[in-house]
Amino acid sequence: MAENSTINRRIVLNSRPVGAPIADNFRLEEGPVPEPGPGQVLLRTLYLSLDPYMRGRMSDARSYAAAVAIGEVMVGGTVSQVAVSRHPDYQPGDLVQGSGGWQEYALSDGTDLVRLDARMSRPSTALGVLGMPGFTAYMGLLDIGQPQAGETVVVAAASGAVGSVVGQIAKIKGCRAVGIAGGAEKCRFVVDELGFDACVDHRSSDLRQELAAACPKGIDVYFESVGGRVFAAVLPLLNVKARVPLCGLISLYNETSLPEGPDRLGLLTRHMLVKRIKMQGFIIFDDYGSRYGEFQSQMNTWLKEGRIKFREDIVDGLENAPEAFIGLLEGRNFGKLVIRVAGD
Amino acid sequence: MAENSTINRRIVLNSRPVGAPIADNFRLEEGPVPEPGPGQVLLRTLYLSLDPYMRGRMSDARSYAAAVAIGEVMVGGTVSQVAVSRHPDYQPGDLVQGSGGWQEYALSDGTDLVRLDARMSRPSTALGVLGMPGFTAYMGLLDIGQPQAGETVVVAAASGAVGSVVGQIAKIKGCRAVGIAGGAEKCRFVVDELGFDACVDHRSSDLRQELAAACPKGIDVYFESVGGRVFAAVLPLLNVKARVPLCGLISLYNETSLPEGPDRLGLLTRHMLVKRIKMQGFIIFDDYGSRYGEFQSQMNTWLKEGRIKFREDIVDGLENAPEAFIGLLEGRNFGKLVIRVAGD
Repeated sequence: MAENSTINRRIVLNSRPVGAPIADNFRLEEGPVPEPGPGQVLLRTLYLSLDPYMRGRMSDARSYAAAVAIGEVMVGGTVSQVAVSRHPDYQPGDLVQGSGGWQEYALSDGTDLVRLDARMSRPSTALGVLGMPGFTAYMGLLDIGQPQAGETVVVAAASGAVGSVVGQIAKIKGCRAVGIAGGAEKCRFVVDELGFDACVDHRSSDLRQELAAACPKGIDVYFESVGGRVFAAVLPLLNVKARVPLCGLISLYNETSLPEGPDRLGLLTRHMLVKRIKMQGFIIFDDYGSRYGEFQSQMNTWLKEGRIKFREDIVDGLENAPEAFIGLLEGRNFGKLVIRVAGD
Repeated sequence: MAENSTINRRIVLNSRPVGAPIADNFRLEEGPVPEPGPGQVLLRTLYLSLDPYMRGRMSDARSYAAAVAIGEVMVGGTVSQVAVSRHPDYQPGDLVQGSGGWQEYALSDGTDLVRLDARMSRPSTALGVLGMPGFTAYMGLLDIGQPQAGETVVVAAASGAVGSVVGQIAKIKGCRAVGIAGGAEKCRFVVDELGFDACVDHRSSDLRQELAAACPKGIDVYFESVGGRVFAAVLPLLNVKARVPLCGLISLYNETSLPEGPDRLGLLTRHMLVKRIKMQGFIIFDDYGSRYGEFQSQMNTWLKEGRIKFREDIVDGLENAPEAFIGLLEGRNFGKLVIRVAGD
């Protein structure tokens, strides 16, 4: 497919958020479509992934990756088609996964690209179940969580891109899978469609009791991506020798100061001591990049066998990315959130 | 050596402490020396180990082991001599390590006993560098901490039974070893006698800055046994992929309620996420019991080679155990605290 415009629309960081991001933190700009130099390709974005980690890139606080500068294009994973190639390995029409960011066209020297099968039926899954979120679920659960058959695995944000995969792999491994999700509709989906054993609504005023009832033998693995009151409900239920892989803390990302006391830091470490708990943070490609092939092979097999299901929440139009992202941090999406930037 | 008394003096739990233990929480009692039944031995206590974990046994809060009941003898590891044997494997005069508790005589069916070499020059070391504290240091550092040559290992309570061994093993493994201890005398001992690279006084008002200065390349392994403001100073210095073995939290044991805010639980988990930190609690014999032989063999070799030094703080007389234990929780001991209950 040839490029069909001379205009590149892009969303840049307009200002840094204080607390929750607002529309004014983003700005839609138009510029010329860039020209690839020698060894470069021009990519036309088909799909843009929206993920919670992007909130960290909007702040200049020290984090695990550099902040986006004011006026710079927002970073993000993309599925793109090669529009123009001056790179020997790529031809126009090739389908690739890359990091083109929140824009319609991007240049690449190829080092960040993974080639996709051009006949792939749903290229957007390269940003979800077959991409970074699925990989996060797979390595965090299996390598850090080490679930054993018969154990109870609890996962937060269970209808989302990562959580939905965590629970389904837990079932494949013979565990009891218990989700935590926001609202009755998501909880029904997690149990009825994804096959979890139970799902608890984190909006419930009885979250602790409902979670305890769903985990009669306690919690052996808690896959953490949320923090806050969800973690507070989980903590007293963790069993001796429990494992807590930690890939995100979405409920904390918009905090502007430490919450009021009492100070529970010592409460957490005492639990970890008395129960001999292991808790470990990880950043998927930094820590496990060498195992991406193993993951993709296994996940493709599971998908073909119908053992892993997924749900996408696809929003049309780059201009709608800021509002969709703001909603993601509030839990308004339902499934993996992807922006369709151009038809494929 | 034959039993030389018909009276067994013992220290029982008189009342549960609220906050720091006081003398009145203990009671010295006298009773008859018990008679061994078939398959039992009567043990005469030579040395009693005093260790911070005993504070947990004095409370009835749920912990990793059962609480001592009011009126029961305080639990504790001991080095004893067999006084009377009705067990086929033991003869009077045999030297054993066991768990006789805070008393002059105890019965055992042999299941909790480890035979010691009767010619051992310092039997009390079976409660220190060659016993539970040394084993805790060895497994926590090597199995959870996984120190690599050139990395920086920081250990709290560095002049104590566990910390002193942690830092010396770190040096054997080619690491920079930095201790934290209470007072100039202990810090001098840690550097001059034990061979740590540096030691910081936790009473200093500039603890954070002094620790930062002692760790110019940050902290790769922090061996935690203290918590509180020591951990607060360590946390910002932890490097990417740092490991935190957690064997105790002595600064928290006397707390009667959670400290005032702000709530730093999320601060800790955010650090763990962004820096991809692993933190893991462990209870030495529960988690690593099968590797006790490996540890003893290695430690004996290091001791013979003069590569591990140790210091004991020996207090004479069972009646002095309560005050010595109260002092232990305040850091008043200097080296492994042991009560000499009877001459050997």
